[in-house]
Formats: sequence, structure tokens, C-alpha cells
Amino acid sequence: MGPLFDQVEQDDMCGKDNWEQAESALQKQAADKAIEKGGLRKTDLRYLFAGDLLGQLIATSFGTVDLEVPLFGLYGACSTMGEALSLGAMAVNAGYANQVLAMASSHFATAEKEFRFPLAYGNQRPMSATWTVTGAGCVALAGDRKEGLAKITGITTGRMVDMGTKDSMNMGAAMAPAAFHTIEQNLEDFQVNETWYDKIITGDLGEIGRTILLDFMKNKGRDLSELHMDCGMEIYDKEQQDTHAGGSGCGCSAVTLCSYILPKIQDGTWKRVLFVPTGALLSNISFNEGQSIPGIAHAVVIEHIDG
Amino acid sequence: MGPLFDQVEQDDMCGKDNWEQAESALQKQAADKAIEKGGLRKTDLRYLFAGDLLGQLIATSFGTVDLEVPLFGLYGACSTMGEALSLGAMAVNAGYANQVLAMASSHFATAEKEFRFPLAYGNQRPMSATWTVTGAGCVALAGDRKEGLAKITGITTGRMVDMGTKDSMNMGAAMAPAAFHTIEQNLEDFQVNETWYDKIITGDLGEIGRTILLDFMKNKGRDLSELHMDCGMEIYDKEQQDTHAGGSGCGCSAVTLCSYILPKIQDGTWKRVLFVPTGALLSNISFNEGQSIPGIAHAVVIEHIDG
Repeated sequence: MGPLFDQVEQDDMCGKDNWEQAESALQKQAADKAIEKGGLRKTDLRYLFAGDLLGQLIATSFGTVDLEVPLFGLYGACSTMGEALSLGAMAVNAGYANQVLAMASSHFATAEKEFRFPLAYGNQRPMSATWTVTGAGCVALAGDRKEGLAKITGITTGRMVDMGTKDSMNMGAAMAPAAFHTIEQNLEDFQVNETWYDKIITGDLGEIGRTILLDFMKNKGRDLSELHMDCGMEIYDKEQQDTHAGGSGCGCSAVTLCSYILPKIQDGTWKRVLFVPTGALLSNISFNEGQSIPGIAHAVVIEHIDG
Repeated sequence: MGPLFDQVEQDDMCGKDNWEQAESALQKQAADKAIEKGGLRKTDLRYLFAGDLLGQLIATSFGTVDLEVPLFGLYGACSTMGEALSLGAMAVNAGYANQVLAMASSHFATAEKEFRFPLAYGNQRPMSATWTVTGAGCVALAGDRKEGLAKITGITTGRMVDMGTKDSMNMGAAMAPAAFHTIEQNLEDFQVNETWYDKIITGDLGEIGRTILLDFMKNKGRDLSELHMDCGMEIYDKEQQDTHAGGSGCGCSAVTLCSYILPKIQDGTWKRVLFVPTGALLSNISFNEGQSIPGIAHAVVIEHIDG
């Protein structure tokens, strides 16, 4: 997917002193790029809906302070891009804002440090583990519909689903039940079946989470094997990159949306997509205190705009 | 203020195994109380807008999972109650939801551990430090206006303001410029002057932050000395509780709003209040890496409903 990105960094520090500042730099780049590509002006942006995985959202705080845009800080773990798009679309659709940004980021090194082990420890990773994506994606949402762009036509906001999973090295298993719940709720609310969508795209279930999701769906009589795609399985080349079950992190679904999914909706390859970023709600404290890992998934319906 | 609270815990662990679970228990109690007092049913709640100070919002995740309500997880540091009320009111006003909850919590022990020192270390605190409030406040927002209740009639969402403050033991100084900016923006946007409000109430500036805010306002020709109130200065008894500059934490403005401010608006003592929770955007990582502490403040206009 490399050639699809607007900008690729060669330095995982982005020239900064530490990884957190590097992740902030990614957010800044992504926001600037969205403003540039959308032909927007910073002063016209009414709100910024953004978040990341770090405690107290420091990647977002320091990455967006220079934008000088009113900020709604969001945390939905790796589902944050779905939360940001949902609230952004709600604000624009209601007429509260004409232009807003929705953004999320993650960084492999900041996330490992935050959730698992110091990188220098060099721990081994089970095959169920995913590899946090280093990247940021930013979408500009505006009230005027233009040919060649895409539109958000619905949302289904997830509730937490806790099936008692406790393995932070198998987040696909923690998130799959939430993805299942949100997708089922979406189909029920909109009174459609799964084939109403050209693609149903989850955030970062990875291989194991996808298997669980497809099993759950099969029990409901739905065959998602062709319809379903997972950003975590698309983003890395399994053979060459040795990333085990796939990619993860807020940045995973955000960069896959911006680089791969949106262009396919814009050019009409896919007319209607259900985009379902998925999050695993844990911290190192909750993990160390023996808590389970509830999942959450926020769905956004994104459609092609016909000419 | 003790007698004003709906419920007072005698045990700072709420009978749980650790402080994080105790904070979750406070959120659960607050949500249940709001549902009970509002005569609502869980199944009628369309969205929950909630957050806390902890990394990855674990107090919120584990405190609200049993509600089974679609969750928008929010982080605005101690301004979170303002963010939750703003987004909740936006959703209800647009017709996206008829009933939602807005909630925030903090706990002295979880916050000290998260941001400063282990409690067992017994560090001394400078007089500029504030004492994190252990408490949760939850507001039910609904589309139908009833006499004897209060209504949200406007919001001014804050942007980050970074004046280079780096002292995590003086958060009032970090947040006061953001409070100033948001209040000025509100007065400008609504084309009113400060006397349009019966009270302008900040979240947790404390004594030092209040002094800075009043100074900044004075430079603009505004005398806020009588109009201004700060939840952080109201919540504790300075003489008897030895809490230095005041109270802080998401819970500070949330519990002061629910127990003290809203009843005064409901009974008409105050006809129109500008409620401005204030947040300091730092984490232990950003602090240890030498970053500054940007402030943010989200203002909500709350008015008395006449008979």
C-alpha cells in the first residue's frame, strides 16, 4: 500500500527527539495535507474531532495545537477514526459547522511503550499479536457535496461488548464480538441485509478477529467471506513484513481509509461501504489489575457521490 | 457542599480492589442516579458522552459497560464535562437522540498515580497545587423542556492555548489563558458582554488561575470579580481541608455542576450561567519529556426554564 500514501516518512522519529513528538508530527502532517487537498483554509475549520491511543491523547494535543481549531478530543481505542467521522458528520449535517476535520493516529513505538513492553526488552510476540501501524489519517468533512468525492450517509455508534477476553496479545478476539454487534445493529436499524454494502470493512481485527467475526455472522445466516475486508489485514504484506495477525492502532483504519478505501468509493468501484473501525478498551493499568478487555466498534456508512 | 450530593461514599475504594475500579463504581452510581432522577429507562438512552482523566479512559470503560448504551469516549482533561455537555446537546438539538447522558469522573488516588507520584511516596505539595476531586457527575439531556429544569442554549468549544507553562503543580496557570480565550470567544460570538450572565463559572482554575483570569479580563476592561466563580474554589473548605489552591479533576466541575449549579439555575436564583470547565493537557510522559502544558476550556450556556 506504500505508493497510495500521500506522504511516507523514512525516519520513525520524524526528526524529533522522541516517539511521542514523532506521532504528533504525523498528525500535523496529516491535517496539513487534508487542508491542502481539500482546498480549505484553517480559519474556516469549525471543529477538529481527533484522538490517538496514548494516555491523555498527547499525540493529538501536541500535534494539533498549532491548527488553532476548536478541539473535541476523542478516545475510542482503535475505533477512534469511526468516532471522529461520526461526530464530525453529525455536526456538519446538523448545520453546526460547514467544515471540520476528523483525524486519528498511532505509532508502533509509542503504543508498545504504552500498552506492552519497552522496545529495548525485545520481547517475543505470539502469532495472535498485531503490529501497531505508524501513521495518521485525516478526513475533511464539508457540507457541500461534490462529484468525485464521497459522502457519509449514516452511522451506527457502538456500545462496549465484554466477553471476558484478557489477552492483550490477541486483540482481534477482544474486538470481534463488538464488530459483530455493531454490524448487526446497523443492518437491523437500516433494515437492510449485508449485500446492501459493496464492502464491510473492519478496522484491525486481523486474521483471528476476522475468523471470529465470520463465524458469528455465519451463525446468523450471513456469509461475509467475500464482502468483508479488514484494514489490519490489508496494510501489511504478511509474507514480507512478518507482522503476525495483522496491523492495528488508530492509524491502521485511518490511513487505510484515506489511502485505499476513499479513492475506491470516490471512483465508484465501491458504491456503498460500511466502515467499522474496532477498538480494544484496555490500558496497562487495567491489564495489570487483571481486568478484561471490552471491545467497541463504530460504524460509518460511506457512499459514492454520483455525477 | 457535602449535604448537596446525592450520594456520599465513606470508603474511597467503594468496596473494590483498587482505585481504578472505585472510580468506575462512582461513574456507575452517577449514571444510575441520573437515570433514576430523570425517570429514564436505560433502553431509551441513545448515546453516552463520557470520559475521565485516566489513560485510555478505563474508569469510563469499566464504569459504563453495564449500561449497554452506545458510547462516545471523550478526553478533554478536566474540561471533559463541558465537552460531554456540548456534544450531548448538539446531538439532542439536531434530533439525533431524544435522551443522552453526559458524564465525567475523577479520583484523587487514580489521578495522583497517573500524573504525579505514588501516594506512598508522601511528597510535599506546593501551595499552587490543587487536590483532585474524588467524584462523578452525570447529567441527563433530553429533547423536551420541562419547567423546573434547565436548558443548554449555546456552546463555545475551546481550542488549545499553550503559553509555555510547564509546572504540573500549578495547573491553574496552565488553564487560565484557555479559560480567558474561550470566555472572550463566547462573548464575541454571542455579541454580548459579561453581564449577560448571572455567573461565569470555571472548572478548576483554583486561586492562582482565578487571579490570572481576572487580570487578563481586567486588561480587556471587564470586571469579573463578582461574576466569576470557580468550582475548584467552591468544592473544598480551604481552612479545614488544607487543599491548597483548590480542587481539580474532571469530577470537580461535574459534581459542582450537578449538586450546586444546576439546582440554582433550576430554581431561578441564576437565570443564565456560562459554565466553563477547564483542562490541562499533559500526561506523565509529556511532562517527563519536557513538554509544556497546553490548556483548553469548553463553555456551555445553561439557562433557567421559565414556567
